[in-house]
Amino acid sequence: MEFNLTEAVAVLTRTPASLDALLRGLPDAWTRSNEGSINGKHTWSAYDIVGHLIVGERTDWMVRARVILEHGEARPFDTFDRLAQFRDDPGKPLGALLDNFARLRAENLSALQALNLTPEDLQRRGTHPALGTVTLSQLLATWVAHDLTHLHQLSRVMAHQYRGAVGPWSAYLGVLQCSGHSAG
Amino acid sequence: MEFNLTEAVAVLTRTPASLDALLRGLPDAWTRSNEGSINGKHTWSAYDIVGHLIVGERTDWMVRARVILEHGEARPFDTFDRLAQFRDDPGKPLGALLDNFARLRAENLSALQALNLTPEDLQRRGTHPALGTVTLSQLLATWVAHDLTHLHQLSRVMAHQYRGAVGPWSAYLGVLQCSGHSAG
Repeated sequence: MEFNLTEAVAVLTRTPASLDALLRGLPDAWTRSNEGSINGKHTWSAYDIVGHLIVGERTDWMVRARVILEHGEARPFDTFDRLAQFRDDPGKPLGALLDNFARLRAENLSALQALNLTPEDLQRRGTHPALGTVTLSQLLATWVAHDLTHLHQLSRVMAHQYRGAVGPWSAYLGVLQCSGHSAG
Repeated sequence: MEFNLTEAVAVLTRTPASLDALLRGLPDAWTRSNEGSINGKHTWSAYDIVGHLIVGERTDWMVRARVILEHGEARPFDTFDRLAQFRDDPGKPLGALLDNFARLRAENLSALQALNLTPEDLQRRGTHPALGTVTLSQLLATWVAHDLTHLHQLSRVMAHQYRGAVGPWSAYLGVLQCSGHSAG
């Protein structure tokens, strides 16, 4: 499927409410548990994932879109800090994080709308610090796919908590065999 | 995490609204597209997944719980028809499927509540036609994990549509490397 701004925004608009409906008020056993240590790496809980999505709204997507529009390939993007959420106050309730994510996403989508991007704008190029040349449409498609990769991660993290509880059914549950762990 | 009925119901209660927030009104390009043919097997769209969840509410979870409570291990469960949703009218709008899923789930959770299950009930055993002996708590934990495996699948199916559109970012997106395909 080709990138289409309206279709991309349709997903971006829906993510906060979908996460809210799934997570708000859930017991901490679901939202604060992670997948343990995998290959010596600390894994993320649902709470950590929402924190990470907030960092993306603050420092990544629209910030990078503006870098492309204002500087093109001349100025590489700043590196995205994948661990910034762990420096936030861990005592903040998940409900406050969900509110924050919804507000920031709505603000960013208003700002995106206000850019009135043309098909030519979507082909404009920028420089990713590791990946090299990318286009604005690739950046915006990645914003969508990044929501989906973390929804994917979130469902896996939650299912992991019932790995033992499901007994022999674990053989049938694809989510318990997932190796698609995100690099961010 | 040990199985706990209240915690399980907390997830089961939230799934319909979360899927509704994500999918209702989304363009068909997102909801009617699948992952193509994988190893000669037809894959599922978001629409097909919601249809499958409806079949589960109708024929699997509470039906099997009652078989355990009424017949124990003496009567094996009926086989779950993983393809039943493909015999439904494909012209039915996704919104109607989401309504249906929400209604059936609410009815099933009311029925579950009415059973007033004790810790002893949760240890009662039944017979799965392929997996052999299972307990009621394993069945109910699987109901939860089954929601999560299909949320996991759904996010992967949607992300797949942007596999090309994200350009070089595909290397960073775990959802595009997932091999945890569900057997049901």
